[in-house]
Amino acid sequence: MINIEGIAASAGVAIARAFKLEHPDFTINKQSVQSTDAEITRFNSALAKSQEELEAIKERTRAELGDKKAEIFESHLLILNDPELIDPVRTMITDEQVNAEYALNETASQFITMFENMKSAYLQERAADMRDVTKRVLTHLLGLTYVNPAEISEEVIVIAEDLTPSDTAQLNRKYVLGFTTNIGGRTSHSAIMARSLEIPAVVGTKNVVEQIGSGDLVIVDGLDGQVIINPTDEVVAEFRVKQKQYQEQRAEWNKLRDQKSVSKDGVHVELAANIGTPNDVAGVIDNGGEAVGLYRTEFLYMGRDKLPSEDVQFNAYKTVLEKMEGKPVVVRTLDIGGDKELPYLDLPKEMNPFLGFRAVRLCLDRTDIFRTQLRALLRASVYGNLRIMFPMIATLGEFREAKALLLEEKQNLIAAGIEVSENIQLGIMVEIPSTAVMADQFAKEVDFFSIGTNDLIQYTMAADRMNERVSYLYQPYNPAILRLVKMVIDAAHKEGRWAGMCGEMAGDTTAIPLLLGLGLDEFSMSATSILPARSLISKLSKAEMQELAAKALELQTAEQVVELVRGIDA
Amino acid sequence: MINIEGIAASAGVAIARAFKLEHPDFTINKQSVQSTDAEITRFNSALAKSQEELEAIKERTRAELGDKKAEIFESHLLILNDPELIDPVRTMITDEQVNAEYALNETASQFITMFENMKSAYLQERAADMRDVTKRVLTHLLGLTYVNPAEISEEVIVIAEDLTPSDTAQLNRKYVLGFTTNIGGRTSHSAIMARSLEIPAVVGTKNVVEQIGSGDLVIVDGLDGQVIINPTDEVVAEFRVKQKQYQEQRAEWNKLRDQKSVSKDGVHVELAANIGTPNDVAGVIDNGGEAVGLYRTEFLYMGRDKLPSEDVQFNAYKTVLEKMEGKPVVVRTLDIGGDKELPYLDLPKEMNPFLGFRAVRLCLDRTDIFRTQLRALLRASVYGNLRIMFPMIATLGEFREAKALLLEEKQNLIAAGIEVSENIQLGIMVEIPSTAVMADQFAKEVDFFSIGTNDLIQYTMAADRMNERVSYLYQPYNPAILRLVKMVIDAAHKEGRWAGMCGEMAGDTTAIPLLLGLGLDEFSMSATSILPARSLISKLSKAEMQELAAKALELQTAEQVVELVRGIDA
Repeated sequence: MINIEGIAASAGVAIARAFKLEHPDFTINKQSVQSTDAEITRFNSALAKSQEELEAIKERTRAELGDKKAEIFESHLLILNDPELIDPVRTMITDEQVNAEYALNETASQFITMFENMKSAYLQERAADMRDVTKRVLTHLLGLTYVNPAEISEEVIVIAEDLTPSDTAQLNRKYVLGFTTNIGGRTSHSAIMARSLEIPAVVGTKNVVEQIGSGDLVIVDGLDGQVIINPTDEVVAEFRVKQKQYQEQRAEWNKLRDQKSVSKDGVHVELAANIGTPNDVAGVIDNGGEAVGLYRTEFLYMGRDKLPSEDVQFNAYKTVLEKMEGKPVVVRTLDIGGDKELPYLDLPKEMNPFLGFRAVRLCLDRTDIFRTQLRALLRASVYGNLRIMFPMIATLGEFREAKALLLEEKQNLIAAGIEVSENIQLGIMVEIPSTAVMADQFAKEVDFFSIGTNDLIQYTMAADRMNERVSYLYQPYNPAILRLVKMVIDAAHKEGRWAGMCGEMAGDTTAIPLLLGLGLDEFSMSATSILPARSLISKLSKAEMQELAAKALELQTAEQVVELVRGIDA
Repeated sequence: MINIEGIAASAGVAIARAFKLEHPDFTINKQSVQSTDAEITRFNSALAKSQEELEAIKERTRAELGDKKAEIFESHLLILNDPELIDPVRTMITDEQVNAEYALNETASQFITMFENMKSAYLQERAADMRDVTKRVLTHLLGLTYVNPAEISEEVIVIAEDLTPSDTAQLNRKYVLGFTTNIGGRTSHSAIMARSLEIPAVVGTKNVVEQIGSGDLVIVDGLDGQVIINPTDEVVAEFRVKQKQYQEQRAEWNKLRDQKSVSKDGVHVELAANIGTPNDVAGVIDNGGEAVGLYRTEFLYMGRDKLPSEDVQFNAYKTVLEKMEGKPVVVRTLDIGGDKELPYLDLPKEMNPFLGFRAVRLCLDRTDIFRTQLRALLRASVYGNLRIMFPMIATLGEFREAKALLLEEKQNLIAAGIEVSENIQLGIMVEIPSTAVMADQFAKEVDFFSIGTNDLIQYTMAADRMNERVSYLYQPYNPAILRLVKMVIDAAHKEGRWAGMCGEMAGDTTAIPLLLGLGLDEFSMSATSILPARSLISKLSKAEMQELAAKALELQTAEQVVELVRGIDA
């Protein structure tokens, strides 16, 4: 029996025999070609076959998994037709008289290396997509055949170095009970697909492929991120119990879909979801979300070569508002800069981007960009319950400046005869320590707060959350963080405002009892965390959690806080 | 009359005719040489002449300005004899058969560019030193003569593109009443020398050389950083008054040298100085410092190719303690990382070094480095009044870990029969928001706090203080900062501890009334700020400042706080 740790990418427990999905050998040799015309024809034909295949997979995915999942293949098709990739390949074949495999591989590798070297999760995913497309075209050029995961016809656990999005899309849920890979992270496409398909998955194991033989019995525990190879009968029995418990829990959570989120002693809080695109709204509704607590608009600005027009934005905001049918939608204005770059804005490199020119700081300088977004939001406001939120506010002066621009654009629209809602709440993210400390003053001027814990923690502890060497300081449960959260909530309530939270912490089961006790009004989290959170809250008494929180505020370390919460009975 | 803004580099007002100090033309052509041996001899001879000159200047400087100022020329001599610079020049002459000027210029330029590209003020100064040395050697190689500023024999204001340290050292105080340059900053060597020489100076004007003709009447206002060319008689009269007032003020400040720092209503606070090397102690005593509030030990680790030995450190700490004759000396343990790099530690590049692996975070990982420093400190403790302070403490856990290492080393020394003081106070820098918020808990375990405002402000506002695009957020007077400072002071007093401050803010005349009102016990600043601060405090009533501070805490913006302080009568 071997135990391997990995990253829990999709919840659940699967027990079955291993099926090793191995990719063919893509070794490429540089060769001189006599007729570059013939070589280009061969390249074009491989592109055409890949195009056909991708369109078929896209249609199948759309039918089985919906529009959003099919988008991955839409982006593969875009890469396949991207002249920035394809033209240099043709030029290289002609100019250097080399074989198409070599020219494609060289060209694509350059892009992939470039993307991978950028510290943006988004661009790193683009690198994975490009690798996937390149492999597909190379398969045709090299005349390779490659095991189609769609052909699996008995219950198995798929073991692979990595699964491409195409691999994942072709997995048959009937037979593929789970999968595990050497590489990948929680936000890789294959992990996202696994969660949609509800297939338990553990990724990033580093060497699971090397340790498993085809036909070995394997347990994939997507709850705790572990893989067990050739377990004993006792262990299998133990995991059958864990599997059953999880299935029962899922069934219980699903019953809560259409219920309000109410504590054991009858106090209602709002459980909302964080989204990135209009397509995410379906997941919010499926998981019983009562609101959108954070709509991250930066995805509208990413993966393109210029700023999105006012109409492109208007349509996105309108779609989300309409789909939410009058439930609140908190839209965060552009939060770009820092680790989120927009190549077409050509921002200067900064020594400490997390402490730099980003979000509202950029918007107050580039008011052209900001005004376009504000107009699109104001125009969309009549289609639902819009709330606007400014990110990275550090001073009251910045909030007033941003608000003044909003009011100006509102007057302009009204003067032009365009209808604008009169009930737009205007709030701020509290993610900078100064703003938490000054929350009492801000509360006199804003309609709501939404605490952004990811940034608030990293600034309060002065530790870059992406930097492994100081990651021990990223402490959500440090009493300092809880005290700042309390300041914000108390300040809001004193002025009759509401306070929410849209960082990772809001969906964290250790944090929820404390946050309920501190009086948080709205919890915004990944859609899939909503039902577990609702279930947990229904078992907690707010009055008791208030006592718990009061104790936590007087503790000295994060470890003591975790211990305190572990002691409660829920 | 033309008015030019610049950086106030040395206080005072000077009025005189312009003397333009122009450097000769250093244009260098690449030439082939027949005999590389002869060329190397020519190079060696230029090096020898430069060496002679530098030694003479060093001796003159030592005699007139003291050991510390002479160190600049010590470092020039080190550069002149550095095989890393000189050997490649000789190799290039031999291998490429080129002239010595060209070989030297090429080699030095590479080093200078490399140093300049590093975001470290320290290395940028090294670049200036290397440029200075290179020019000196080139002067001999090119057979140039160059106006020696020592030859000036009438009262003038020197105007130059830049002044090299050698230029500045040769300025005759009798005739050179002030100077102004196109480039340079407050911490450039020439600015530091100007302050020692007490010559008013304005640097970084960008284009003063282009706008002034030799013989023009010029006013250099080193108080407000302005240069006035060909002023009217009224303006000259106005600045004569300003000049006189400043001289009177200096005389008044000098009377305070040996007095305690006491407010108008009789409350004593401690005015201490920040130092970087044992040589700085003379300035502390000259300026009436009551203590060393911050001894930055990182200079011991910089400008060398390996870690300083325990004995090198012991000697430095002992020297400072002895020179301070029983007055308190707060030594900060190693604060390296972030923008302060040590090439020989080979630390990985970080995306956000200010939020990274630095100071105590590094010391708790590299305990070998930390233990060496702690042993050196403990051994030195018997020579004076030592206080030890850990930088960048974010959690109580870190403090306890650092303290445990200190106690371990203390036991080891005692076991080895080495004497250690039993009265070493142990404190922390408060420069991370979490620590300010948790000060009540820390106060139970530390002997004192020293608030490091430079970092505390940048983390609290989430704005890199070196990044011009967000420098508007570096707000010492933001009420959020004052509230955190209050939390720290109140927490200290509640447990009978003392609270000091060692950031820029402690010496700032706008901040001092507020800090006095908030109850700060110790103010640590540049030595030259001590007498003005003592003078200011003697005119302030602590009771009144308490009321002022209470009002400031309830204001909304930094601008309002500044306005409030401007309203007081002192």
